[in-house]
Amino acid sequence: MALRGPLLRLFRTQINRACLHHNRAQSVAILGAPFSKGQKRRGVEHGPKAIRDAGLVERLSNLDYPVHDFGDLSFPHLEKDEHFTHVPFPRSVGSANQLLSTAVNGAVRAGHTCVMLGGDHSLAIGSVKGHSQQCPDLCLIWVDAHADVNTPQTSPSGNLHGQSVAFLLKELQDKMPDIPGFSWMKPCLSATDLVYIGLRDVDPGEHDILKNLGIQYFTMRDIDRMGIQRVMEVALDHLLARKQRPIHLSFDIDAFDPSLAPATGTPVNGGLTYREGIYIAEEIHNTGLLSVMDLVEVNPVLGASRKAVEATAGLAVDVIASSLGQSREGANMAYQEIPSPKEDTGLRL
Amino acid sequence: MALRGPLLRLFRTQINRACLHHNRAQSVAILGAPFSKGQKRRGVEHGPKAIRDAGLVERLSNLDYPVHDFGDLSFPHLEKDEHFTHVPFPRSVGSANQLLSTAVNGAVRAGHTCVMLGGDHSLAIGSVKGHSQQCPDLCLIWVDAHADVNTPQTSPSGNLHGQSVAFLLKELQDKMPDIPGFSWMKPCLSATDLVYIGLRDVDPGEHDILKNLGIQYFTMRDIDRMGIQRVMEVALDHLLARKQRPIHLSFDIDAFDPSLAPATGTPVNGGLTYREGIYIAEEIHNTGLLSVMDLVEVNPVLGASRKAVEATAGLAVDVIASSLGQSREGANMAYQEIPSPKEDTGLRL
Amino acid sequence: MALRGPLLRLFRTQINRACLHHNRAQSVAILGAPFSKGQKRRGVEHGPKAIRDAGLVERLSNLDYPVHDFGDLSFPHLEKDEHFTHVPFPRSVGSANQLLSTAVNGAVRAGHTCVMLGGDHSLAIGSVKGHSQQCPDLCLIWVDAHADVNTPQTSPSGNLHGQSVAFLLKELQDKMPDIPGFSWMKPCLSATDLVYIGLRDVDPGEHDILKNLGIQYFTMRDIDRMGIQRVMEVALDHLLARKQRPIHLSFDIDAFDPSLAPATGTPVNGGLTYREGIYIAEEIHNTGLLSVMDLVEVNPVLGASRKAVEATAGLAVDVIASSLGQSREGANMAYQEIPSPKEDTGLRL
Repeated sequence: MALRGPLLRLFRTQINRACLHHNRAQSVAILGAPFSKGQKRRGVEHGPKAIRDAGLVERLSNLDYPVHDFGDLSFPHLEKDEHFTHVPFPRSVGSANQLLSTAVNGAVRAGHTCVMLGGDHSLAIGSVKGHSQQCPDLCLIWVDAHADVNTPQTSPSGNLHGQSVAFLLKELQDKMPDIPGFSWMKPCLSATDLVYIGLRDVDPGEHDILKNLGIQYFTMRDIDRMGIQRVMEVALDHLLARKQRPIHLSFDIDAFDPSLAPATGTPVNGGLTYREGIYIAEEIHNTGLLSVMDLVEVNPVLGASRKAVEATAGLAVDVIASSLGQSREGANMAYQEIPSPKEDTGLRL
Repeated sequence: MALRGPLLRLFRTQINRACLHHNRAQSVAILGAPFSKGQKRRGVEHGPKAIRDAGLVERLSNLDYPVHDFGDLSFPHLEKDEHFTHVPFPRSVGSANQLLSTAVNGAVRAGHTCVMLGGDHSLAIGSVKGHSQQCPDLCLIWVDAHADVNTPQTSPSGNLHGQSVAFLLKELQDKMPDIPGFSWMKPCLSATDLVYIGLRDVDPGEHDILKNLGIQYFTMRDIDRMGIQRVMEVALDHLLARKQRPIHLSFDIDAFDPSLAPATGTPVNGGLTYREGIYIAEEIHNTGLLSVMDLVEVNPVLGASRKAVEATAGLAVDVIASSLGQSREGANMAYQEIPSPKEDTGLRL
Repeated sequence: MALRGPLLRLFRTQINRACLHHNRAQSVAILGAPFSKGQKRRGVEHGPKAIRDAGLVERLSNLDYPVHDFGDLSFPHLEKDEHFTHVPFPRSVGSANQLLSTAVNGAVRAGHTCVMLGGDHSLAIGSVKGHSQQCPDLCLIWVDAHADVNTPQTSPSGNLHGQSVAFLLKELQDKMPDIPGFSWMKPCLSATDLVYIGLRDVDPGEHDILKNLGIQYFTMRDIDRMGIQRVMEVALDHLLARKQRPIHLSFDIDAFDPSLAPATGTPVNGGLTYREGIYIAEEIHNTGLLSVMDLVEVNPVLGASRKAVEATAGLAVDVIASSLGQSREGANMAYQEIPSPKEDTGLRL
């Protein structure tokens, strides 16, 4: 019994305050995470710059709350970081995520809705972990072409950006070896706290994990069958029906079709349309519960042209803005009243 | 009582005859309106030529009725046309629309289904007004990324192509200042006579107007939720359930996604697919009530390549042809009977 | 009474064995058919090579059964092949299809699921005919922008790739003249054995045939209305509700939108999305009844760029693989069990 009653209640109260988000965020914190060692292709560390260059801060300034850009985290370079079995850069990924988890924890504690700009998707380990330290009852919506739930042993490539969810799930704890760099990391989610949307390239071992753990997931085939409206209804009901709780949205830009988001490392045909992606973001905003979001895997080095890079980064901005309240109905800002010519104050004249 | 009984009945009869359209138009009149001063970018005055060059008349000749191309209207150039507050070219827009209203009025009176080729969307003022002079009970379907319902005071840009609907609505009459060039124009529609489809970039003041007037509108988000089939069902029911009446279709090419219609002045991501646009046109044709249609905002100067321009103009042709009866089922022309080899008349031999 | 009781039963048993396919094919036979004389544009004879170059065999090797590539059929060149009325190359098309029918017959008899790579769509005549010799109760799913059901007399172009279905249907027998090269061919299907999906460019005579024969067809407009999930449900129910029977899938790549499949001879705007095409293939696989499939009209000469050709051929590979069991859920191969670190056998270490 480390905490006695009153203190425990206080602690809980604080957590709840930081995690409470009603319909509109009070303020937004942007954290850049220029990190690429969760996979083997260079370039994704330039994702935060590409997304900022596409006008992120200016766009969010059209919404109704202050935006704080905390710049990029600085990750230490480790001289010596040997493979663990066939897993590359284990210590680099571990230490970057530990640092990121502290930053996200702090941003949420300070009352911000936090937007983490990756970087590769291994960063979700630290982002979700840090978020969970403030909001232990969070739920996770993972929008991605891939399930990223391989263990080191089921992973065909060994890349840690394809294993993030395996680190997070309590049910997989005994399937995970002791990977150097991750001694700080304990799983913080149950399989029922997670929903996938957009899957279409699932490894056989991942398929087994999804089925064995009874994880709720919606492949592109499910979206084809049910439509995005119904998918979001079922997904949010699965996570929120019993109680309202903070949402962590982890959005991999490769969830979109490669024709829309070409500048990414592992594109897969048959992805989300622009409108489906925006709809997902809008629906999550409409819960009023978004607490942290990751936008990852924008890799400006992999675009075939400047236009391809700008399209991909612009899409990332659109998803973030829609998650934070930008509306296709024009309702993002309140307008007082239709002015009459007689009452005109000359504001525009 | 300007009109006594018998004359009034005659007048009504004439109106009704001109406005009656059953399933297939008797004849089609094409009117070009090479006008661009409802906004500030040059090039949209070449829209009528681009649409004709994409094969409009030839395509319509595959359908079952005569097509009359009346060429382009000639709009006077006004030497002196100073801004009204921040609204550019008010007199030019006013006089062009007055002229257009007379032409559309005449075409409808002559029994044609009228196709107006813009030009910018400010031309809808004259097109709808002229149509309403023959068919005072018309309803308006506005397919567009934008609501074009700003008043001069709510308009961020001042451009009149974003204010057309405000001129048409009786409910906004007391919100509209006396704009030079528009003394001839009186509003002719009620808010319940109008449906929007395809909105996704609505200004805050416009959102207020839509909500305050209770206008029926379907944003792209609504199409994502309901599907285009249900949207059209609700839209047509809203306009036609109580009585059959002439339809004015005002179709802005920017309703389509910019990947399909790049050569336009104010593209917005996340637009209609090709199939949704054609479906809208087919459903309107199927009512048998289409009386006048506008196809506006094709701007050949803004296409990045000749291919982009041709795609945009070709799309305009497809929308017009589908609105007038071209069918994906191949039912646009009747075929007598499957010929037998024995009965063969040697027609093709 | 050519066959007496016991022999007849044996014959039937043999047919049934060859035609029985449960959920997963035992083996796949690939047959290339480099033939282009069902139409007038050169290049479609290189379709089989383009599809193989896009990685067909490698992709199928990820599935759970052996793949046998029997290479390309060799079609005789006929020096003298005059037009029949306005129909070009009648004897060439006839003899190629006779040869193909023998090959398909043999592949099915040997127990393979047969994949025929075209070539133009006239090849479906021989492919379906050969299939029907083993499986007289087959049903046909024709995925195409076009109905290909013209008779020589209704056909505007005369091309036989637009007449394949007319050769197959018993109901049209008395409408078909005696075309040189086709004395071997007798119709083998009834109108109720056939479903079309994807139609959007139907000739007036074809529309009459579809209506007169009561053929079940789904145009793009129907897909817009009903959604692809419901279309497949109705289509498969129409064909399979009374009894399970072998499916012949005849897939013309021009069913897809030209933006996805540009390298083809008669593209038509407003086609299937990637996901709709894959969904059709998955649903057919899920019946466990696919017996023969055609993939036709990939024409590498007509792509505007190498990228356009590779996209089209890659799409063909995706459709074939999905028809044969490739799954977006990752369930195409069974995975034993999630391995634990303690039990690790060092397989990957």
